[in-house]
Amino acid sequence: MSLIPAAPEALQQYDYSAGLAELRKQFGDRVLTSESVREQAGKDESFHPAMPPHAVIRVRSREEVQEVVKICARTGMPVVPHGAGTSLEGNIAALKGGVTIDFTEMNEVIAVHAGDFDVVVQPGVTRRQLNEYLKDQGLFFPIDPGANATVGGMTATRASGTNAVRYGTMRDNVINVEAVMADGSLVRTGRRAPKSAAGYDLTRLLVGSEGTLAVFTEITLRLYPIPEAISAAVCTFETMEGAVDTVIGIIQYGIPVARVELLDALTMQSINLYSKTEFAELPTLFLEFHGSESSVGEQAELTQEIALEFGGGGFQWTSNTEERNRLWRARHEVAWATKRLHPKGEIWATDVCVPVSRLADCINQTREDIDRTGLLAPIVGHVGDGNFHLLLLVDHDDPEEVEKAQALHHRMVMRALQMDGTCTGEHGIGYGKIEFLEIEHGEAVEPMRMIKRALDPENIFNPGKVIRGL
Amino acid sequence: MSLIPAAPEALQQYDYSAGLAELRKQFGDRVLTSESVREQAGKDESFHPAMPPHAVIRVRSREEVQEVVKICARTGMPVVPHGAGTSLEGNIAALKGGVTIDFTEMNEVIAVHAGDFDVVVQPGVTRRQLNEYLKDQGLFFPIDPGANATVGGMTATRASGTNAVRYGTMRDNVINVEAVMADGSLVRTGRRAPKSAAGYDLTRLLVGSEGTLAVFTEITLRLYPIPEAISAAVCTFETMEGAVDTVIGIIQYGIPVARVELLDALTMQSINLYSKTEFAELPTLFLEFHGSESSVGEQAELTQEIALEFGGGGFQWTSNTEERNRLWRARHEVAWATKRLHPKGEIWATDVCVPVSRLADCINQTREDIDRTGLLAPIVGHVGDGNFHLLLLVDHDDPEEVEKAQALHHRMVMRALQMDGTCTGEHGIGYGKIEFLEIEHGEAVEPMRMIKRALDPENIFNPGKVIRGL
Repeated sequence: MSLIPAAPEALQQYDYSAGLAELRKQFGDRVLTSESVREQAGKDESFHPAMPPHAVIRVRSREEVQEVVKICARTGMPVVPHGAGTSLEGNIAALKGGVTIDFTEMNEVIAVHAGDFDVVVQPGVTRRQLNEYLKDQGLFFPIDPGANATVGGMTATRASGTNAVRYGTMRDNVINVEAVMADGSLVRTGRRAPKSAAGYDLTRLLVGSEGTLAVFTEITLRLYPIPEAISAAVCTFETMEGAVDTVIGIIQYGIPVARVELLDALTMQSINLYSKTEFAELPTLFLEFHGSESSVGEQAELTQEIALEFGGGGFQWTSNTEERNRLWRARHEVAWATKRLHPKGEIWATDVCVPVSRLADCINQTREDIDRTGLLAPIVGHVGDGNFHLLLLVDHDDPEEVEKAQALHHRMVMRALQMDGTCTGEHGIGYGKIEFLEIEHGEAVEPMRMIKRALDPENIFNPGKVIRGL
Repeated sequence: MSLIPAAPEALQQYDYSAGLAELRKQFGDRVLTSESVREQAGKDESFHPAMPPHAVIRVRSREEVQEVVKICARTGMPVVPHGAGTSLEGNIAALKGGVTIDFTEMNEVIAVHAGDFDVVVQPGVTRRQLNEYLKDQGLFFPIDPGANATVGGMTATRASGTNAVRYGTMRDNVINVEAVMADGSLVRTGRRAPKSAAGYDLTRLLVGSEGTLAVFTEITLRLYPIPEAISAAVCTFETMEGAVDTVIGIIQYGIPVARVELLDALTMQSINLYSKTEFAELPTLFLEFHGSESSVGEQAELTQEIALEFGGGGFQWTSNTEERNRLWRARHEVAWATKRLHPKGEIWATDVCVPVSRLADCINQTREDIDRTGLLAPIVGHVGDGNFHLLLLVDHDDPEEVEKAQALHHRMVMRALQMDGTCTGEHGIGYGKIEFLEIEHGEAVEPMRMIKRALDPENIFNPGKVIRGL
């Protein structure tokens, strides 16, 4: 895997003494350089090797972010923004060292505009913190990538998660950002108006740019009313096709399903082992409906009818909050459950996304491929979006297993690309998927490179990520 | 108005003889240079002065678009893409002459993927043509800016219209584009997967770029199932606030309203005059609900309850197709109806968009301002989005009226900007709103300029639009 960065010792090749001295002059002992802080800063939740920065600074204001960026711009020192560290493609590894800007302390909810269904937050606010803050006002922010990520990180990664099928992804729910550009200037990419046709869509350009074009200092998000009623359902299928065709039917029927997760037989088996549940060990849909009391009932009823048509069985439906939470806890604990299958295995979580009509085929071919390798890898999917995850269990100390996993991963991504899919639906590129970005976008990588060069000519923002060959 | 381009004679200052000769060599007598064709090409539906190009070519394939762009790149000749010509800010005026690429003949629907709810079209396909093509498959494309615009033009303008409150704008419904860049290279900005976190969002960067960054050759759009039931309602209010608060209540309640249009008293008066209807001449909401039979009934019922709370009256509800069509015809004929108010007046249609909580205030202040000037200007709004239109009736031959209108327009846009709004919700910048783009985005214009320079270094794509000072 040529993308693995050199060992931390390699940082010695970079001389940022001028920049670090300036930083210390400005921020004193707030420039953190202890080994433990630096190592934590360079490590995300991925399988990819970590890489610590030379220093970490916990910023407290937009002005401080500007100050750090200006020092880095003057001295050619890399800048890596850091939220909760829950990324999955090495997105926060400081591949060329430099300074990690930690947003933990910029975690204020600045303003809720209830009548406008929007909220302005600092980048370090986490998803759960935000929803806790909002709940008394009957509002919520729906994007749920699983981890308790920060809004800044979710914006940078163009995150989505379980209920994107109803509410969209970060792309659709960031109204504007305030950001520091590579020359230290501060821009706001838009107003609070719900839509605009005024100029280039800088908001969408920065959403998903993974810290390579700008560093966020404030983010305005779209909110939604907490639904009057929420209900959940489970349904099992003999085949993948049955489950996927049911979801296509649900969309075709215009049922505004809020979540629809596909869990394969192996995933259900690991859930049963871990959570002591007794689910049938078959391809299974977990569904959630939002709406009025009568509407969620109608949605569930229609869904059951559609599922029956495609061989669905064991339909269970609940509008009881506790039962619903138990269901989704099982879904969210899949990662922990999975680990039980292979005690020495670490999880390599990866995702692809294909047109929904190709999803069953893509999952089935991937399952066959996994089984041929002898590896263990449950599959879970945000099936309404054509997005699925492989939780590859790999023993790092077993080179043969690592090699098998890498080859399998490569085949899975290439399979998705051949089906007019994308190499990542929601985890981003980081440095783990750069080669696939190039295969996926072909000629279109060149305009991306031109934009990166135009906005960050010295390549100080998160170098080595998303776009290479600068 | 310093933005008015020079008279057509001014084209003589540009010498594109080399480029035009190359074009003729390649395309023979398909290079159209008759005065009538050129004049039509440079004129949109706006109040802004037109400007013809030196030549027009009706392209037939992506390869021809590449060929034209390559000739223009080599010889420094401007390129202006042209759809149906229904833009409203001079977006297609050939301010520096050059070649207009007319997409009328590239109007094929290439592929419908019903299971994936997407369609691939050429840029010259019109909105109505597309929906006519789709209806037998139970699918539709919801974006409806009123005019029968082309998909290419709607994409370039980031258009939206009456049902954006439910289905979003072009930003949300373009899955990817195939486009020719300024060096003649062909890129595709994404796959057909419903979402992606792979690299910079070139799709969203090109949506709304008004032909200044690339020329589209193919567009993939998101589709929706035709709802099982559609119903419509009308409701009147004593005050603007009552109407706007009703809409906020509708969203708060989670009612998935498909359209909600606000028409002011003057608009209702002009409709009554034109369509011989007997609507109350008060601020009025036109609403549309999509869903199952029972759901549209429930939506209308809840909406009526909310409207009553905010002083709504005269609630009329219908699920009869004919009555519904009559209602929306009245809405769509507002422009014609308006003309009756001032026989010598031409319509200057302009739009702004503000946070919904500021909408009543913005409309009321604008109404007072209009009345002070003595001008006639009905107001209609896509109220769910905070977006409203002024249909300014102006006699071109009355310099005093023109001057009054310009001053009023300026104050309206500045008012919207002061309310954290945008200078255009859906018409785009063209050359009519460049000064407001600069006020609105401030420091953020510079990254836009950098992107324009990076992607179109010779400024051949639609020069003089969106970004100036290149």
